Amino acid sequence: MTSIPSNDLLCATRDARGVVTLTLNDPGRFNALGAELLQALQQTLDGLAADDTLRVLVVSAEGRAFCAGHNLKDMAAHPDLAWYQQLFAQCSRVMLSLTRLPVPVIARVQGMATAAGCQLVAQCDLAVAADTARFATSGIHYGLFCATPSVPLLRAMPFKPAMEMLFTGDFIDAPTALQWGLVNQVVAPEALDDAIEALVQRLLDKPRESLAMGKALVYRQRELGLEAAYQLAGQTMAVNMMQPAAQEGARAFAEKRTPEWKR
Amino acid sequence: MTSIPSNDLLCATRDARGVVTLTLNDPGRFNALGAELLQALQQTLDGLAADDTLRVLVVSAEGRAFCAGHNLKDMAAHPDLAWYQQLFAQCSRVMLSLTRLPVPVIARVQGMATAAGCQLVAQCDLAVAADTARFATSGIHYGLFCATPSVPLLRAMPFKPAMEMLFTGDFIDAPTALQWGLVNQVVAPEALDDAIEALVQRLLDKPRESLAMGKALVYRQRELGLEAAYQLAGQTMAVNMMQPAAQEGARAFAEKRTPEWKR
Amino acid sequence: MTSIPSNDLLCATRDARGVVTLTLNDPGRFNALGAELLQALQQTLDGLAADDTLRVLVVSAEGRAFCAGHNLKDMAAHPDLAWYQQLFAQCSRVMLSLTRLPVPVIARVQGMATAAGCQLVAQCDLAVAADTARFATSGIHYGLFCATPSVPLLRAMPFKPAMEMLFTGDFIDAPTALQWGLVNQVVAPEALDDAIEALVQRLLDKPRESLAMGKALVYRQRELGLEAAYQLAGQTMAVNMMQPAAQEGARAFAEKRTPEWKR
Repeated sequence: MTSIPSNDLLCATRDARGVVTLTLNDPGRFNALGAELLQALQQTLDGLAADDTLRVLVVSAEGRAFCAGHNLKDMAAHPDLAWYQQLFAQCSRVMLSLTRLPVPVIARVQGMATAAGCQLVAQCDLAVAADTARFATSGIHYGLFCATPSVPLLRAMPFKPAMEMLFTGDFIDAPTALQWGLVNQVVAPEALDDAIEALVQRLLDKPRESLAMGKALVYRQRELGLEAAYQLAGQTMAVNMMQPAAQEGARAFAEKRTPEWKR
Repeated sequence: MTSIPSNDLLCATRDARGVVTLTLNDPGRFNALGAELLQALQQTLDGLAADDTLRVLVVSAEGRAFCAGHNLKDMAAHPDLAWYQQLFAQCSRVMLSLTRLPVPVIARVQGMATAAGCQLVAQCDLAVAADTARFATSGIHYGLFCATPSVPLLRAMPFKPAMEMLFTGDFIDAPTALQWGLVNQVVAPEALDDAIEALVQRLLDKPRESLAMGKALVYRQRELGLEAAYQLAGQTMAVNMMQPAAQEGARAFAEKRTPEWKR
Repeated sequence: MTSIPSNDLLCATRDARGVVTLTLNDPGRFNALGAELLQALQQTLDGLAADDTLRVLVVSAEGRAFCAGHNLKDMAAHPDLAWYQQLFAQCSRVMLSLTRLPVPVIARVQGMATAAGCQLVAQCDLAVAADTARFATSGIHYGLFCATPSVPLLRAMPFKPAMEMLFTGDFIDAPTALQWGLVNQVVAPEALDDAIEALVQRLLDKPRESLAMGKALVYRQRELGLEAAYQLAGQTMAVNMMQPAAQEGARAFAEKRTPEWKR
């Protein structure tokens, strides 16, 4: 387990397998996404985007809350349109960076995820939550509609339950989040690490380049019409099939043996 | 409780809080959406769109059925393409008006919702149903595929269950509608008014302008690609944050007190 | 029950009602979609597209597996980009042909559906599965991300559960497939034929031209924005209403009798 550039607000650890865990580490402020933490996240994600040894990213958090979203106290202190534009642009860039990272990104949700914290869960590719976790797009309680959180929320959940969360700001519990597809799995808090590790294991025995091509394809094709999506997907799959890992995989299948890269 | 322009087919009441309840009032014809009722709806919605005191709209119905959709008897009497085009355009305009209204729109579904009646439920932002309510896109039983109902249905529900409804015209019950996200909540018939009131309460303590900006954003951003959606959402949120209500909300948060507008 | 052009790999039977059942008949290779079977499927679908007496298409399979997707052994033997491009284009064309067929298409899933086999289930309009059936986008186990399967999967299921399937390649069982909307119904294996027949019956008493217009509309409108979707749907519905079947249906409704075409 080695450390990559971290700071007080964001811990980053990497294990020998290429699994990086980012830990939001500002529990006293419920890991609020202030400008400083967002900048640390962006720098770390930019570094990871260029890191060929990265295999899986886990986004986790320290303390009772997963993430409380933006820092309303900071925002109250800066009644300035340009400042707000900058803040939301910075946050959106972090979210888009998660989708552009060439590895699976898993949210490890150990507690309350509100506003941009709920957005962070929604925007990760996958999410595992403790059964005590709760989710809300709570900005509206303070007069601020969770506009940017609505972007991944509407792409992860059905419309009406998403609208209820956005309009009311009220919490849904973890089983409800699972029912609507906001998270992949809900487990007891003490089983959360094992559940994350089990999911990571299911990803690590796949070739990095196949997951990378697939993830990029998925985010592109879902914005296309059916026919264009098939064209792009067919091309992607043909190129994927020419890669050494897929060639070895297909030969291993034909020869009824384990692919070399799985050993 | 005051009355706004109503007619025999459509009752409209407004309470002191700005909650308007529209009641389809043609129970003898199962509240069928004939040209006259659609016109009354459109006029009322046009009036409400310009009414700054409106806070929440509830769409309800009198009698055993919520709404049986178009009036097939009328339609049989007018075998005329232009007449049909006009009718469906008129109905679509009503539906789009619901999405453009700057306040949350809740369907109060006390009974059967079929064809354009099911569409009406699907197109409202939120819906609460009695557990005795049933839902069908039943036009196909008479040789008329529910084309316009398919528009909000496919945007509220998963594809295959929606296709089964559209192809077969058969009913789903209220728990199934809840499971697929077509409604937000299902309650006993005698608990329907309390459930609507509780939901209304959760909306009324939010600033009108924040809900308005948020609703408009949601309907626009979900038609955009992810990056464009984030750009629009970020801009919207910055503008929202400059509004007095959000400024007060953020200050109240920082000062650990209730926002003035919530008192 | 008559036979239409079949070959060893693909059986096609037609009953007197216009119900055609295609049966993938290569159980020894788990009905893998090799080039030969795909060509047989395409030829049959092209013939059916021009066949006015077709009413419903059922896609079924022989043996323990529904369909194992592409033939990895064949693919290992052809390490050639052009060959792969051709294969995926051929497969995508078959899938698109199912959506363009002017009748409902039902998958009868009696067993395991993996990779392009899972795609086939996802791309059919409707699906009924035995409770023993299982579903996976398993290509990633061999280094090949299921890119083309991701196209209908993301349009049938919520995002995160679909991503978990695509990234891990692991199976979901039939109840889970039902929960996420990948299939319409799950029954005991011995009840599968009755369930398919019951669903077919619910489709056969509808006019062919109404289902045809509706199906084409649905696949077009869901790629449009809300307003454009309503415009197209309104036009479609007006034209549908002018058809003899809908005119008869509306008159029958008004006269409280069964439509002639239902007798």
